[in-house]
Amino acid sequence: MRAAVAGASGYAGGELLRLLLSHPAIEIGALTAGASAGTALAEHQPHLLQLADRVLAETTPETLAGHDVVFLALPHGQSHALAERLGGDTVVVDCGADFRLADAGAWERFYGGAHPGTWPYGLPELPGARKTLRGARRIAVPGCYPTAATLALMPAFAAGLAMPDVVVVAASGTSGAGRAPKTNLLASEVIGSASAYNAGGVHRHTPEMEQNLSAVAGAPVSVSFTPMLVPMSRGILATCTASAAPGVTAESLRETYETAVKDEPFLHLLPEGRWPATSMTLGANTAVLQVALDASAGRIVAVVAIDNLTKGTAGGAIQSANLALGLPEELGLPLIGVAP
Amino acid sequence: MRAAVAGASGYAGGELLRLLLSHPAIEIGALTAGASAGTALAEHQPHLLQLADRVLAETTPETLAGHDVVFLALPHGQSHALAERLGGDTVVVDCGADFRLADAGAWERFYGGAHPGTWPYGLPELPGARKTLRGARRIAVPGCYPTAATLALMPAFAAGLAMPDVVVVAASGTSGAGRAPKTNLLASEVIGSASAYNAGGVHRHTPEMEQNLSAVAGAPVSVSFTPMLVPMSRGILATCTASAAPGVTAESLRETYETAVKDEPFLHLLPEGRWPATSMTLGANTAVLQVALDASAGRIVAVVAIDNLTKGTAGGAIQSANLALGLPEELGLPLIGVAP
Amino acid sequence: MRAAVAGASGYAGGELLRLLLSHPAIEIGALTAGASAGTALAEHQPHLLQLADRVLAETTPETLAGHDVVFLALPHGQSHALAERLGGDTVVVDCGADFRLADAGAWERFYGGAHPGTWPYGLPELPGARKTLRGARRIAVPGCYPTAATLALMPAFAAGLAMPDVVVVAASGTSGAGRAPKTNLLASEVIGSASAYNAGGVHRHTPEMEQNLSAVAGAPVSVSFTPMLVPMSRGILATCTASAAPGVTAESLRETYETAVKDEPFLHLLPEGRWPATSMTLGANTAVLQVALDASAGRIVAVVAIDNLTKGTAGGAIQSANLALGLPEELGLPLIGVAP
Amino acid sequence: MRAAVAGASGYAGGELLRLLLSHPAIEIGALTAGASAGTALAEHQPHLLQLADRVLAETTPETLAGHDVVFLALPHGQSHALAERLGGDTVVVDCGADFRLADAGAWERFYGGAHPGTWPYGLPELPGARKTLRGARRIAVPGCYPTAATLALMPAFAAGLAMPDVVVVAASGTSGAGRAPKTNLLASEVIGSASAYNAGGVHRHTPEMEQNLSAVAGAPVSVSFTPMLVPMSRGILATCTASAAPGVTAESLRETYETAVKDEPFLHLLPEGRWPATSMTLGANTAVLQVALDASAGRIVAVVAIDNLTKGTAGGAIQSANLALGLPEELGLPLIGVAP
Repeated sequence: MRAAVAGASGYAGGELLRLLLSHPAIEIGALTAGASAGTALAEHQPHLLQLADRVLAETTPETLAGHDVVFLALPHGQSHALAERLGGDTVVVDCGADFRLADAGAWERFYGGAHPGTWPYGLPELPGARKTLRGARRIAVPGCYPTAATLALMPAFAAGLAMPDVVVVAASGTSGAGRAPKTNLLASEVIGSASAYNAGGVHRHTPEMEQNLSAVAGAPVSVSFTPMLVPMSRGILATCTASAAPGVTAESLRETYETAVKDEPFLHLLPEGRWPATSMTLGANTAVLQVALDASAGRIVAVVAIDNLTKGTAGGAIQSANLALGLPEELGLPLIGVAP
Repeated sequence: MRAAVAGASGYAGGELLRLLLSHPAIEIGALTAGASAGTALAEHQPHLLQLADRVLAETTPETLAGHDVVFLALPHGQSHALAERLGGDTVVVDCGADFRLADAGAWERFYGGAHPGTWPYGLPELPGARKTLRGARRIAVPGCYPTAATLALMPAFAAGLAMPDVVVVAASGTSGAGRAPKTNLLASEVIGSASAYNAGGVHRHTPEMEQNLSAVAGAPVSVSFTPMLVPMSRGILATCTASAAPGVTAESLRETYETAVKDEPFLHLLPEGRWPATSMTLGANTAVLQVALDASAGRIVAVVAIDNLTKGTAGGAIQSANLALGLPEELGLPLIGVAP
Repeated sequence: MRAAVAGASGYAGGELLRLLLSHPAIEIGALTAGASAGTALAEHQPHLLQLADRVLAETTPETLAGHDVVFLALPHGQSHALAERLGGDTVVVDCGADFRLADAGAWERFYGGAHPGTWPYGLPELPGARKTLRGARRIAVPGCYPTAATLALMPAFAAGLAMPDVVVVAASGTSGAGRAPKTNLLASEVIGSASAYNAGGVHRHTPEMEQNLSAVAGAPVSVSFTPMLVPMSRGILATCTASAAPGVTAESLRETYETAVKDEPFLHLLPEGRWPATSMTLGANTAVLQVALDASAGRIVAVVAIDNLTKGTAGGAIQSANLALGLPEELGLPLIGVAP
Repeated sequence: MRAAVAGASGYAGGELLRLLLSHPAIEIGALTAGASAGTALAEHQPHLLQLADRVLAETTPETLAGHDVVFLALPHGQSHALAERLGGDTVVVDCGADFRLADAGAWERFYGGAHPGTWPYGLPELPGARKTLRGARRIAVPGCYPTAATLALMPAFAAGLAMPDVVVVAASGTSGAGRAPKTNLLASEVIGSASAYNAGGVHRHTPEMEQNLSAVAGAPVSVSFTPMLVPMSRGILATCTASAAPGVTAESLRETYETAVKDEPFLHLLPEGRWPATSMTLGANTAVLQVALDASAGRIVAVVAIDNLTKGTAGGAIQSANLALGLPEELGLPLIGVAP
């Protein structure tokens, strides 16, 4: 099978290519870009040595035609128009936000403009998601923070152990903010500094977390979400807490999580007493989890580490694409990361 | 006036010396250490060029005698016995945890052993604290995380705007973990990685946060606290949230914080819409704050940045010592940090 | 005395302001910028809390008039025209490259365009420089790498111990590359990576090193210079080697350097066997040195650490300005840095 | 085939396991350690999720027996005695220094003690090395710095373009210094700082570089080597210069290097004008090269980036082991790294 990558000059595009280069069933076809069309991929992705000779085509329906799967790693808002002109048989996997939110009101508040609708949501670990994704022709890849927070609290909500007052505080590396040069993302600004941003309930990933957890809980869940930038290029470490439902014990909580991860290829629950570090997942499609009951504060504390570019974007995209293409879900996806 | 520093080979000791070297009213007397006694200070604090010729004495009551103020930057549990043998007229400032907690039960649960009692608590920004600290002869310097969390939420609790269900998630640089070599603190482990530790309600700074906020609120406040280590050497960025009391508005919240910081020399509230970064405080005794109301989640979100070694330890210690010694509170303390 | 800072929104400008805020004899006057004129300084320098209310004026001869000293922290090529319209009595200190190079041919090869001539060169440690700088009204601040390399090898060349085949390899933090957003300076690109740039003899600081060392040696010195970017925001660590002249011994080399630094307020030679780290100088105007004779390879190896923004730019600028203004050379300049 | 890894708790051991986990022809057998014997591998290598259940055996001839290949990642000096008790048919690959140096005098000066002799040197890119390594039963893996410097200058010396006055200055991440906790390797010390160490000709990798380059040149080559530590966990960036032989041109130099890398699976020469970054090689077995002629200084400047744990240690070890075992040289070795 052949894949095209639109937005190959950015970080998500580069990570898709890194993973596809070792995918045994997908070969790399067209590589396209917007402003960078006509330049060598090597200028943007110098680490992809095997693709050093490739030149970026322009992102158009024509350049993307004729592939079994098209990955869109485009700026917000560009997927909609493009996808309409891609064949209905092609698997189109959108790494952007355009088709994630079902609630038109939330879309308008957080993104603005007309609500583009939804595509099947590419988080296979969600209840029922694999069935939808198998054979799907359009897939909306989740946001990186919602991937983290959903995986962390999904077992608790699915088992009725958590109350709907979720607080998520997540530290992210800078690659999540993309490759467009901005002063606040300069190394000089970021190195040696941790900073909060989009705090106070205004980050666009908030309604997506609420959507996912509410669906799992079967009732509205509210999320207070604070993201922060820390001096690393990759990784999200999310601390996700919710009040414990009456009667929850440390043992029932542990058991619930052990059961939840047992058959999941990309979820790993640490032994008790050990807590996740993003270095456990660098370049891997794995989410590393731990959970504890803070009995004194009455809260469930779940912590998750993922690589925002792998499980949080490109790896998650390929995982869902594998399902859509009828391939084994784990195919071509690294389970372990590079450390130290 | 002359100051002795016990524990001069560690990070807190080094920061005390860095600040004292430019303090106009305090000169540096004895420098002492435990296992490093007899070695040159330059081996441990190579940046303190003016003190390169100094050799560390042993930490004993005798070497510490004859100073106006003695700063103790010792491992947990060593301050008690030593302080008893220091003169009652000497100002003894303990950077350790021994005399911070009033609740003997909390002491036993989190530290173990006999409760050593309390000394005047060295956070001058707490209501009534300056009065107690002026002329005090024993001072317990707050923990770095409790300094951050207390400063962040104190205005809200003092004004009755916050409910007692506090969630604190704080990212810290590694210097807070001290200078004793441990595998998990190696650069190879920390660089490129964010990790949680002591999560689930077991970190020793939790009861200290509860003590401070409960005192301000006039009623018990529970704190769910998750610390994480991020790849920087200094700095704490704490996200501190609590449910908003009925009727709280964004305006009343902002006003409350503006009033609270107005006359505080070391508290700085950012303009609306901007969020703290630890780089704003590197090497400074300042706490930089922002607060917002997340109306959808119904929570107050306060974020604070401090330098854990300055305002969080050594700078806070000198600030309180200034009060005890009858000096201006700000004397010798940098207001601004080194950036970028 | 009053100082204006042109280019206050950049890193050099910010460092000038950080240092001037604690300078006892200079107060801060006009703050100007180019494209950022009209914006709040706080947007660009959030750590300079005391100046949070200042708004940037436009950089013009009029806004800069009426000051005792004007610091120019401007992009390459803008100082010349501006300086001509500033009063001859004003001390004008140019942090840019415009007036550093005496050799018009070198200027054309490395910078291009008409040779603007030279101003007194602001490295007081060079032989005879203090005499020239006292009372000077125009000063060209050295480049950051030439400051490092010159201080490292000057003693050896002055004493005739080194041959003219210099090799300099220097690691720099990113702040030396400025605050304009560029993809290659993004945190995501820099963190976790060391990279060479402008290697092979093409870096513009090469002829400046050759000029300085040739002047000290009294004969032409050639320099092979390779800069590299490493994941830190501040600091230069330069390894500077040259073949040893016949008869040089480890003892004579050491003695030469000890003598050379003895009366220099900002040069610090480490004890034998210890090597410089940039963390020894963060935020300080000090250069930390070490030298050894590699007898087997027949080369002198001198290593120097400086903070590129302090001794390498803004601190060096103020040090020279102090001399020009008749103030003590060390006034207002920190000797020690912030560590760890 | 089955491999044992002795020293599985360290960084080299962890990297061997990471690579072997995806090696299609080698399965992982015994995992052994010294002081850590009896503990779970997960305590030391939490990222190796598939091996989380493995417990470390003691490093003895018995635990290592019965494998096709044994990788030794042991502290200096332990390989000799152990290897003597491993079967002569077993491929023993020593990642330590014990069997690298042929010159007994150099061994004594730099390592001390009796000279253990040499094993076939595991750098397949050296002239004639592949022939020796095919079928070898003992292999000495090169040091990380010598791997870098040899690959960088080998083409120039092989073609007679370089004079024997080599200067190497190399920046390394901290993982090269191992996992044993030491104060100078703490994150607090390393982050934000570049530091030189073992400068002045005393680093143990110096004679190994001289041995390799002298063999290639067919005449004695002297190396002045200065290593520095920079704030990253992995990677070596080495700037390697030598005087150009008479008549060398930029074109002849470029051609020489293009020819040299043409058939090498793990050497990659960048397009002219681009310089290596260690991020291009993170986790990969590739060396990325660039070379230029500094005509003014008369020196060849070659810069190389490798991952010290992959091509510099564990990847190089497996590359040589593949040859020894009769497998394709590239088998199981990643060509591209993880970036950004």
